[in-house]
Formats: sequence, C-alpha cells, structure tokens
Amino acid sequence: MLGKREPGIYGVRTLTDINSSLDLLSSDLGVLVKCYQSNHEGSLVDAIQEAKGEHQGILINPGAYTHTSVAIRDAIAAVALPTVEVHLSNIHQRETFRHHSYIAPIAIGQICGFGAHSYYLGLRALVNHLQAL
Amino acid sequence: MLGKREPGIYGVRTLTDINSSLDLLSSDLGVLVKCYQSNHEGSLVDAIQEAKGEHQGILINPGAYTHTSVAIRDAIAAVALPTVEVHLSNIHQRETFRHHSYIAPIAIGQICGFGAHSYYLGLRALVNHLQAL
Amino acid sequence: MLGKREPGIYGVRTLTDINSSLDLLSSDLGVLVKCYQSNHEGSLVDAIQEAKGEHQGILINPGAYTHTSVAIRDAIAAVALPTVEVHLSNIHQRETFRHHSYIAPIAIGQICGFGAHSYYLGLRALVNHLQAL
Amino acid sequence: MLGKREPGIYGVRTLTDINSSLDLLSSDLGVLVKCYQSNHEGSLVDAIQEAKGEHQGILINPGAYTHTSVAIRDAIAAVALPTVEVHLSNIHQRETFRHHSYIAPIAIGQICGFGAHSYYLGLRALVNHLQAL
Amino acid sequence: MLGKREPGIYGVRTLTDINSSLDLLSSDLGVLVKCYQSNHEGSLVDAIQEAKGEHQGILINPGAYTHTSVAIRDAIAAVALPTVEVHLSNIHQRETFRHHSYIAPIAIGQICGFGAHSYYLGLRALVNHLQAL
Amino acid sequence: MLGKREPGIYGVRTLTDINSSLDLLSSDLGVLVKCYQSNHEGSLVDAIQEAKGEHQGILINPGAYTHTSVAIRDAIAAVALPTVEVHLSNIHQRETFRHHSYIAPIAIGQICGFGAHSYYLGLRALVNHLQAL
Amino acid sequence: MLGKREPGIYGVRTLTDINSSLDLLSSDLGVLVKCYQSNHEGSLVDAIQEAKGEHQGILINPGAYTHTSVAIRDAIAAVALPTVEVHLSNIHQRETFRHHSYIAPIAIGQICGFGAHSYYLGLRALVNHLQAL
Amino acid sequence: MLGKREPGIYGVRTLTDINSSLDLLSSDLGVLVKCYQSNHEGSLVDAIQEAKGEHQGILINPGAYTHTSVAIRDAIAAVALPTVEVHLSNIHQRETFRHHSYIAPIAIGQICGFGAHSYYLGLRALVNHLQAL
Amino acid sequence: MLGKREPGIYGVRTLTDINSSLDLLSSDLGVLVKCYQSNHEGSLVDAIQEAKGEHQGILINPGAYTHTSVAIRDAIAAVALPTVEVHLSNIHQRETFRHHSYIAPIAIGQICGFGAHSYYLGLRALVNHLQAL
Amino acid sequence: MLGKREPGIYGVRTLTDINSSLDLLSSDLGVLVKCYQSNHEGSLVDAIQEAKGEHQGILINPGAYTHTSVAIRDAIAAVALPTVEVHLSNIHQRETFRHHSYIAPIAIGQICGFGAHSYYLGLRALVNHLQAL
Amino acid sequence: MLGKREPGIYGVRTLTDINSSLDLLSSDLGVLVKCYQSNHEGSLVDAIQEAKGEHQGILINPGAYTHTSVAIRDAIAAVALPTVEVHLSNIHQRETFRHHSYIAPIAIGQICGFGAHSYYLGLRALVNHLQAL
Amino acid sequence: MLGKREPGIYGVRTLTDINSSLDLLSSDLGVLVKCYQSNHEGSLVDAIQEAKGEHQGILINPGAYTHTSVAIRDAIAAVALPTVEVHLSNIHQRETFRHHSYIAPIAIGQICGFGAHSYYLGLRALVNHLQAL
Repeated sequence: MLGKREPGIYGVRTLTDINSSLDLLSSDLGVLVKCYQSNHEGSLVDAIQEAKGEHQGILINPGAYTHTSVAIRDAIAAVALPTVEVHLSNIHQRETFRHHSYIAPIAIGQICGFGAHSYYLGLRALVNHLQAL
Repeated sequence: MLGKREPGIYGVRTLTDINSSLDLLSSDLGVLVKCYQSNHEGSLVDAIQEAKGEHQGILINPGAYTHTSVAIRDAIAAVALPTVEVHLSNIHQRETFRHHSYIAPIAIGQICGFGAHSYYLGLRALVNHLQAL
Repeated sequence: MLGKREPGIYGVRTLTDINSSLDLLSSDLGVLVKCYQSNHEGSLVDAIQEAKGEHQGILINPGAYTHTSVAIRDAIAAVALPTVEVHLSNIHQRETFRHHSYIAPIAIGQICGFGAHSYYLGLRALVNHLQAL
Repeated sequence: MLGKREPGIYGVRTLTDINSSLDLLSSDLGVLVKCYQSNHEGSLVDAIQEAKGEHQGILINPGAYTHTSVAIRDAIAAVALPTVEVHLSNIHQRETFRHHSYIAPIAIGQICGFGAHSYYLGLRALVNHLQAL
Repeated sequence: MLGKREPGIYGVRTLTDINSSLDLLSSDLGVLVKCYQSNHEGSLVDAIQEAKGEHQGILINPGAYTHTSVAIRDAIAAVALPTVEVHLSNIHQRETFRHHSYIAPIAIGQICGFGAHSYYLGLRALVNHLQAL
Repeated sequence: MLGKREPGIYGVRTLTDINSSLDLLSSDLGVLVKCYQSNHEGSLVDAIQEAKGEHQGILINPGAYTHTSVAIRDAIAAVALPTVEVHLSNIHQRETFRHHSYIAPIAIGQICGFGAHSYYLGLRALVNHLQAL
Repeated sequence: MLGKREPGIYGVRTLTDINSSLDLLSSDLGVLVKCYQSNHEGSLVDAIQEAKGEHQGILINPGAYTHTSVAIRDAIAAVALPTVEVHLSNIHQRETFRHHSYIAPIAIGQICGFGAHSYYLGLRALVNHLQAL
Repeated sequence: MLGKREPGIYGVRTLTDINSSLDLLSSDLGVLVKCYQSNHEGSLVDAIQEAKGEHQGILINPGAYTHTSVAIRDAIAAVALPTVEVHLSNIHQRETFRHHSYIAPIAIGQICGFGAHSYYLGLRALVNHLQAL
Repeated sequence: MLGKREPGIYGVRTLTDINSSLDLLSSDLGVLVKCYQSNHEGSLVDAIQEAKGEHQGILINPGAYTHTSVAIRDAIAAVALPTVEVHLSNIHQRETFRHHSYIAPIAIGQICGFGAHSYYLGLRALVNHLQAL
Repeated sequence: MLGKREPGIYGVRTLTDINSSLDLLSSDLGVLVKCYQSNHEGSLVDAIQEAKGEHQGILINPGAYTHTSVAIRDAIAAVALPTVEVHLSNIHQRETFRHHSYIAPIAIGQICGFGAHSYYLGLRALVNHLQAL
Repeated sequence: MLGKREPGIYGVRTLTDINSSLDLLSSDLGVLVKCYQSNHEGSLVDAIQEAKGEHQGILINPGAYTHTSVAIRDAIAAVALPTVEVHLSNIHQRETFRHHSYIAPIAIGQICGFGAHSYYLGLRALVNHLQAL
Repeated sequence: MLGKREPGIYGVRTLTDINSSLDLLSSDLGVLVKCYQSNHEGSLVDAIQEAKGEHQGILINPGAYTHTSVAIRDAIAAVALPTVEVHLSNIHQRETFRHHSYIAPIAIGQICGFGAHSYYLGLRALVNHLQAL
C-alpha cells in the first residue's frame, strides 16, 4: 500500500516506483534483483527458503514482522545468505516495540529512516558485501 | 585506533583510509566533507554546536557515546541539522547495552554493520536527504 | 470453532449464529455487513487492505492475533478506516499476555467480555461513530 | 466537569446530557437507572456497598480511580453485582498508567473509547447480561 | 530445511528421515501417525482444528512459532487434544526469547534437546498418555 | 514422598515403583542404573562429583533445586557428564518461578510433564545419547 | 460488609462480632480499645492524626488501602504511635498487587491470614509491645 | 500536622506559619492567595474543580497524593489552570516510590527540598508565570 | 545464635529462652510442642517430611531460607500440615529480597516483627486454627 | 546555545541575559555569583572541585549530564557544598530518561520548569539556605 | 574438584596446591589459616558460626552459594567477623546471575578473576584489615 | 580530592600517599608504574590509547566512570592490555547503580573495598598476571 499509506511515515513513493529504481540501480551495479512482496509471514519464510541456491543475498524490509517474527529470523539463519535489513521509516522514532528487530542480529547490518532511499542504500551495501567476499 | 582495534569487530581499514575514501566519494557527489575525531564527549558537543551555520548536515559515528551521551543528543537537537548516524559494527549483534542509541531518535536514520562502507552509505544518505529538501 | 471451543470462556453461540444476528441488527441499523474469518494473519491483513474503498469501517475480533500482530495493526493504520475491536471473553480476566492489544491504540475503542453480544455492541458503536462523522 | 474538560479527549457532552440519554435508553430497555457521581473514592465505595439489595447491576466509569483504586475493586467484588466498566476515552491511546484497570478483572466486561456512547453501550451490555441470567 | 539448516543446532537428519523413523516406531507402538509440515502459522492452526475428531493426540514441534504464536496455543486449547511439544535443540541453551513457550502450558509436557530423538520420545510419551486414559 | 504428595501434581506412583521400572527398562536397554535420593542440596552435589569416573551419564530430577541451585548446576558442569533433566510435573503449567531451570542450560535436554514416564523417557534419551557418541 | 463479603476469603464473622471479641480480650489484657471503620482514605488519615495524644498505639487493618495509600503510611509515621498491621486473609496467597504493603515498613509488625483471629493476635502483639517499652 | 511531624524531614514550621508568610509575600507580589488543606483526595479534587473561574493559578503540595493520585492530576488537567507543584522535603532523597509524581507532567514546574521556603519559591514562580502570559 | 546475633534486629532473647516460653504457653494452651533447629535446608526438609503423621501442625521460622528455599515450600505442601510462618524481625523494613517469602503462599498466615513474641503469637494462631477445624 | 536552541522547550532568553539577571538579583540579595559554562563533564567536575574553599554553595543546571553523570554527583558530594539543582524545562514532561537525576539525591532541592526564572528561584533558594545555617 | 573442573574458567591449580600456598603466605604474614571446604550450604553456615570466638576473620570463596545463599550472608552478619570474599573466575564475565553476590554487601571487599591468586590477595587484604584495626 | 573527600567512604589517605606507596611496592616487585589522574573521561580514553606499546598492563580505578563509561571500556578492549579494576570503597555496599561496572567484564578481575590497599593488591594482581604469561 506504499505511497497511499501514512505518507508522513512511509513517504509518497509506491512499491512500483521503488522496484523500478532498484532495477536501474542494480543494472548500474551489474547485478540482478528479484522482487517479492507478501503480507503472509509464512510466504516470506517460503520465499527465503527458496532463495537458497537461487540467489546470493537477501535485501529485506520485514515491515511489521521485524518485531514479531522468529520464523523469518530462523529462515534467514537457515539459508545462511548474506542479508541486509532496511526500513523506510526511522524505527527508533516510533513506538518502543518497533525499536527491537528479530532480524538485525542475524543480518550483516541494518539501514533505516531514509524512505525509499533505504532500499538503494541497502542494495549498495549488499552488493559491496558480496563483492568483498 | 581503527584498523588496529579488534579487527574482527571493526574491520581493518584505518580512519585515514576512510577519510580518503570519503573525500573521493564526496567529490563524486559534489559536496565538501570536513572530518573530526575526538575521544572527548564535550569536544564532540563543541564541534556539533560549531557546525551550526557552517555545515548543512552531520554524518556521525558516536561510537561508545551512542549508548551513554544525552549531551551529544541534545547538541544535535539544538543545532537542528539533518544528521545520519553510522556504525562500523552491527550493534544488534553485540552486548544488549549497545542496542540502544540516544542519537537515533533525533537523527534522520541509522546505518550499522557494514564496516567502513557504513560511512559511504551514510554520506550518500545525507547528501540525498539534503538534495531532496 | 466457536460454540464448540472452551464454552466456559467463549460461550455456546457459533460463528453462524453470530453472523445471522449481525445481519438482523445491521438491517435494523440500516447498514450492510460483510463477514470474513481466517486463521491466517496474512489473510486478515489482505482483507483489511482490500477493505479500503470498499467499506466504511471495520469491526474486528483479532483473536489470538490481538496480542502478537503488528502486521494487523499496521494494516488498519494504513487503510485508516474507523475500527472497533471486540472480544468474546474478558481479556483482563485471563493470562497477562492477553491484557495487551496491539490493535486497541489505533482503534476507536475496545469492547470485551460480553460473549456474542460484544459483536452487536461493536456494530452499534461503529455505526454510531460513522453517523457522527 | 464533562463537556468543559479537555473536550478533545472526553467529548463535548455534559453529564446531564448523558444522564438524560441514559434515562431514555433505560426506559426503552424496560429498566430503571439511578445515577451517582462523586470525586471521592470512599463515597464511591459507600455507594457500591449500598447498591447491594437495592440494584441488580452496576454500570461504572471509575475515571481516574480505574487505575489506582483497589478499594473500589474490592467493593464491587464484595457486593458481587454484575458490573460493566465504561470509559469515554480510549484508555489504550493514552499514558501507559491508564492501560491497566483494577476494575476490569472483576467486571463482566469493559467498553472504552466511544465518548458518551460508551455509557449507552454499557447499559445495553448490562441489561442483556441480566436478562440472560 | 532440516539436515541442511545449521546442523550444529538442529542435527543432520532430514525431515524425511525423521518421518520414516516415526513410521517405524509408530507401527511398533501400534498407532498410526500422520505428518504435516508448514511454514505458515495459519496453516498449522487449520491443521490443528482439522485434527479434532480425526486424531487422538498431537505431537508438535512448533519451531519458531513456539515463542510467538498465541494462535497455535489457542487452537490446541480449542481442540482439547492431548499434545506433546518437542524441540530438536535445547531451547534453554539458546537466546533468552527461546526459553519461553506459549504452547507448553497447555501441553501435557515438553521434550527438548535430543535432536531427531526428541520426536521418538515425544511419540512414546503421547502414546503412553493415551493408553493410560 | 512420591505417591502420597499432592498426587494431582506428581502422580500416584511411588519412588520405589519408579526405581523398579527403571531397573526393568535399563536391563532392556543393556545399561546399569544406580539410584540416589536426597533432600540435601549438598549431598546431591557430593553425589554428582562422585559420579565422575564411576558413571557415564546423569539422569536427574532436581525437584525444587531446579529453580534455586547454582551449586548443582556447577557440579554437573564440573563433572562434564552428559545429563538429562526430568520432571514429573509440567513445570510450565505451575508458578512462574518454576519455569526457570538452572540445570537445563548445561544439560543435553529437558523432559517434563509425563509423571513417572518422564524418567523412562529420560533414560532412553540418555542411553541414546551415549550410544551415539 | 464483613461476614457477607466473599466468606471464602474473609470468613463469616461480622465486624460487630470482631469488635465484641476485641472488647473482651482488651478487658482481659487490661487495656481500652476504640474501634473506627471507614471506606474513606481521608477519614482514616484524620482518625490516625486524632489518635496522637489520645491513644498509645494503633491496630490497623488497612484493607484495600494497604496496597495504595501513601497518605495512611505518612499519617502513621507522622503520629509516631506504635502500629500493628493485620489482615483477615493471607495476602501472599492472593493477587500480586496485594503482596506489597505501604504500611508494613513503618509498622512494628504485620499479621495476616488468620481471619478474625488476626485482630486478637494483633491486639496481643500491640499490648505486649507497649508493656515492654 | 506540620511542625510536629517528623521535623527532620518536614522542618519545624507549622502550616499557620507558612500561611502567614505566604500572605505577606503575596501582598508584596500584589496577589491574593486562598489556602486550603485536606487529608481527603476527593476534597482536594473538589477544591481544584471549584478553582475554575475563581482563581488564576494553583500552588499545590500534593503530599502523599503526589505519588498515587491520578484523580488530582486529572482535576488539574481538567481546570487547565497554571499549576506549580511544591514539596517541603527533597523527594529524590527518600523512598523510590516518592521519586515519581503524577502531578509534575501536567504542572508548569516542580520545586522540592527547601522546607517552608518551597512554598514561597512556588508562589514567586506562579506569579511570575501569570505575569508573563 | 539468637541473643548474640545483631540484637538490634533480632532481639536479646536466646533460642533457649524462647523454647522455654513456648513450653509454658503450649502447656497453657493444652498442646505439646517439639522444637527443632538446623542450619541445613535439607535437614529442615527431612524434619518437615517426618512431621507427617507425627504432628498436627507446623510453626516455622524459616530464617534466611524464607527467601530462597523452594524445597522447604514443597516439603510443607507435600505434608499438607497447617503451617504458620513467623519472623523475629519485620522483614518489610529490611532489604528488598527479604520482602518475598516462598513459604507464605502455602502457609495459613504470616506473623513478623514482634521479636520472640512472634513465636508465641504464632503458636496461638496455629492452635486456634487447629481447634477450629 | 540558549535562546537559539529549541525555544519551545528552553525559552528565548540567552545565557548572557540570564547571567545579567543573576547579577542583579545577587546584588539585591547581597551575594556574589560566579558563572561557569562548559560542554565538558570533566571541566564541570574540575570547576566543582575548585569551588571547595572558594565558594559557599553551588547553583547548577547540569543539563544533559543530569541524567548520565555520576562523576558530577560524586564531585558535589566530595566538596560537600550546599547545592541547588535547576532546569529550564520541566523534565517530567519530557522523555522518561530525563525524569531521573543523579544530582537531586545529593542536592538540597530541585527546581524545574520555569525557564530562566528557574535560575532566579534557585539563587533565592540557595541564599536562603545559606543564611539559615 | 579444582584443577580438574573446567580449567578454562577455574584454572589448573588444585585445592591442595592453593591450601599449601596459603600456608606459606600465612606464615610469611605471621598468621595462622584454617581451611574448610564443603558442598553443603548448611555446613558452611555451621563453620561460620563456629568461627565466632575462634578466629579473627573469614576469607571465603562462596562458589555457587555466592548467588543464592541468604543463609551464608546472615551467618557472616551474625558472627560479625571481618570477611573477604574471593572468586577464582571473573564473575562479571560470566552469566548474569553470577554478577550478583549476597555476600559482598556484608563483606569488607570482594576480589575476583585472578585464579588461585585471588586467595593470596584475599589473605593479604584480610590480614592488612585486621592489622589496621 | 582523596583524603579530604567523604573519608568514611574513601578513607583518609591522599592520592600522593597512594602514589608513593605504589612506587615502593612496584620497586619491590621489580616493575615501573606510571600514574595518571583526570576528571575527564576523554582524557582517560586518550591515556589508555597511548598506553598501547608503552605499557604492559593497566591498573585502573575508573571511579564514577565505572558505572557510565562505555568509552573507557571500549578503549581498554581496543588496546587489549591486561587490566585490573580497583575501587577504594566496597561498591556493593552503596547505591544500586554502583553495583554494575562497564569495565569489569573486559578486565582480568576486580578488587574493591580495601581503601588504598585495593591499589596495592591490584598492582600485585597485575604483576602476577603478567609474570604468568
């Protein structure tokens, strides 16, 4: 619902905008990006497990599941792919329950607060990490 | 002491390396960066206050003071300059007391875990934010 | 499983009973009600997002997800539809973890403890709220 | 002080308005309502104790005493009359200390957030409960 | 992903191995076992609800949902089937958030730490419990 | 006092019954079991220390000391013998202070809730663990 | 309301019964007792302040105010009369909020759990304390 | 009871002394002060509500009710009169439960620790605030 | 060590004094008292278990074990004899860890703060309880 | 940065304004005031230690260090000079971490919330305290 | 079990080694040392009580009982002998429950982390303290 | 300010006394000691960083910074020199916030409570540690 949802918090860019920009940036960086969105924790877990062997890394905005999903954390730990966690909003400026992330401790790093730009920074971070391996 | 200090946590790049790379990146981005380092909380507060009117934004790695300094938080709030907080290490993988930042709630956003690359991502984030104003 | 499940806590009326009664009451109040039930957090999020533009308000019994789902909270906040939260049981008489609701702070109000009657009170509350706008 | 006091939180209807509306509704429902208001915790306890044998149920908005009065809780438990707790404001959207109610665990249920309408819903809930006995 | 996922924690046996061994053991014990696996909390809830009337007991490894799912707890309580909770790893040796189980208080008992053998012990425990009824 | 003590919690089987059954099971499994019971924390510590060099593993029901004895924990860690912790009752259904075990983090695993059967499952678990070394 | 109120918790003896028995016991012990009962915290504070110079000690059952009244604590500290705190019920067997007493730390001692007998023990304790001065 | 009560904490000046001094100071400052004292939380609430339209500000020493009374807090918020909170003793040197004030967050400010002088400082603070409006 | 140990806290009477006085009082009350003292938690547990069938009730000062011994709690619960808990000192005036008793929730009641007199009150309380059965 | 920094919180008066007003007031009160400002915790500690023997009291606004500096607390305790703590803003209306002061427990008293006027009240409080010695 | 038990934590020196070295050091310091070791909390309490009148001070490594034994704390307070607490390991580097000592607040001081050398330092500290009396 | 500052807590010896005694002891032990004192956290951090390559170990009394300085902790971790933490007072007998040390977990060990003697014990501990390497 990006772009329509609480724009004061999440910005005015839609998911389609962001995906297009990610495509441009990924082609600049010489990598391929496959996008996936779901409201279902289980589907996100499935997608992460399917990434094993298919992809070299994960760029994830776990949204509300950041704060509640041990299942997504365990899926990322299980596939053992380098993972960058991004957030549109600055989670540290919001409710206390949003300050804790189940994902961050098993990710390479976390980027939050830069709106759609968080994704582009996250992609750069991930590609840089993979190139340094 | 970067580069020599606990390289497993903070990486092998020295502060001089990082400053040089920041210079290169800043010239690419068409901005000027002035670097400052101190072990003194009060000196960091002084430097932030002096930035008012001199600079357009702040890129800060508050190090240990992230977790203990209300003074640095208040200085940033006082100068009201857009601020990006960066960390070399992933603070969410370390001791619990490092998970909390006094700075993050008054920053635009926070980036952690990417070693020296956290600084470059942070500079991009700050410049992008300033250009969007 | 309503009507069969722990009747001491949830009462003996089935979901079909409740839906029928809601239909009667809604026709009395001059409104239309569409019912939806799912055990899947993601499906509830989907349904809430689809309510945007289709419906004028949400009457929700988030069940177990009341206490664990930031995703449902964020979905309701995102669609910004007036929402009334209801519970069959008095959640304040049960385990401590049931006293906290992620939904209540972004709802108009909360009604709990009146069995199936919680739904009818909730519908009245929602319709009254919408008529007062 | 209802109607004059912080109308953004408590609404613009006065206690007299609410009492009049309760009279109308109670006559619709075929019951008699006796109203009592006091700023004194002890007087509320006295009134609850006097209700024993006089009344069949209690509809109570314990206001500030919701969060601090074990005496009111114990009085209600002592008279063992069915009790419905109502609040004008949504206590879950306010300060943390307002999220806890000493009354709710010994009430039938709790209704909050619907302004003056909370009282009418509460009366319906209480009458419905008494009729079902 | 069992057998491939973090073998230091979860062991090297695959889910297929475990299911085969369970078949052998169940035939020894004179019972029939039906296996079900899903990454979706809602699907697990559906499966538990469908077990009502079909099965006599539940042997469950709730995985990551052990620590976050009130929905699975409520489903087990609703079907009121004897339930044994098992874990491959010793959850008390891992992160603090894994020490708490929403399921254990409504199960007969809990077995953890014995790798694939936890399942066989759990099956014995369940069958023994059912035979003693 | 087993068999006479709170049978609703601990079951009706006496310690003698359990010891006999353990003897039968141990002879089935081809192992020798030596039983020891004491109300004295220090005597339990002594017994554990004496097990070093005499026994290959420890099957322990630390009873009340589960929740208070760092000494027993340290003794088990000191002898470094594989240890299985068992409980007659489901400690997760009882008072909060019984949910925490000082022993579990240094044991192979924990089994609770199956009455006397917890011991037999624990013996199987221990023997299986030793055979897999 | 004693004698009628929750007899399982508070016993079947009425306040009149207890007062009569206290009169008998006090005459045995050679002392005079003046009884006072109020549901009003402020009236209890008034009565305590008036005891200064009139009485030699205080025997108090602060009821619900035990757990919430700093005012009664401060009044007792202000008059500096030896005070014995009694409770009909065993407050340690009830809700957690009843385990804490604001009065106990400034009393000589506390007696709870013996029903009406708590008062007689308390009177003995107070008289014994005064005689030992 | 001021002047007689625990003089080490509250000083030796009586309430009459303080009221006289307040009269002198208020005449110096060109304002009129009306004094009110009660041990009854409800009477204090009544007095605050009656101040609305009669007085321009409130100087309050809420005593023990500072730490327990949401009712006084809500009354002050309801009348929306500028309020200064004062304490004779330094509440931060005493028991932990005295460190928290329900009143301070809705007052202009708080003054504590200066004995009777706290009142005179408080009056100056209130008059200064009103003159600056 | 009573009588010599911290007399400001525990009084000057020795254990022999107290035992003699208990003998006198018990003969007045027409009962027989058997005294037992040990520094060993396990010996206290043994003694409690041996009381089963030998004695009709337990008068216990669990001393330091009050705050740490689940074993003594469980022993008392196991023998199911009416138990009165006494303390020489007022545990609510001392360190916070002494405010909690593992014994109190399974005792009839608790008496603390009256020095040696706590024992005599406790004996009266126990005898009165047994006579009322 | 006073006067320019977040004027909604800290007011519009500059430090120079405040110092001038303090000079006027101090000459009225017949005392001499020496002003010192630093962003360095260590420099504040140095200045406090140098006050020993030079000054008769300390009027301090510890700013951000109020909430984090044990060093300033210990310095004040070491010099043992009467100290008054003042704050421009009402710290109880702001973030929770600002509610706690390390300084207040070792100061005479604390004044907060009256903007620049807090300093003048603090000076009066300090002079009054010194004159009463 | 010292020397054999977890040598990474407790070092390789045996208790006999340490006792011998203590003998040498004590003869250097001109004092006599009597050694006592027990796994029984009650025996340690007995030994402490027997030290009264026999010894001038106590050098104690309370081991696991450091963190759980109020009985040992109370015994040391009762005998009122100067006591030095030592630990082989650095308890602040280990599990959180080992950071708290019941003994330290009633000891002269605490020494931890220096392996067997902790004992020698402790003996020097105790002798120095006794000589300074 | 040692020797003048709160002698009941910190003793009567001055820093000069202690430094002289350390010189004597160090010459006995055949080592050289360089002393440094500062009230500035940043200066202490600078000094620690400069110790790298110059010194073989650190003997530190972090004073108030023990409880608040992550910067000093990180500096010690960065230089990776063996460090012994000492305190004049027994920090476990003082305010709760003094019980926690940020330094202890990265030191070899901690010594507290022996006044000036803590330094001499600390020097012995450090030299012994260095000689054992």
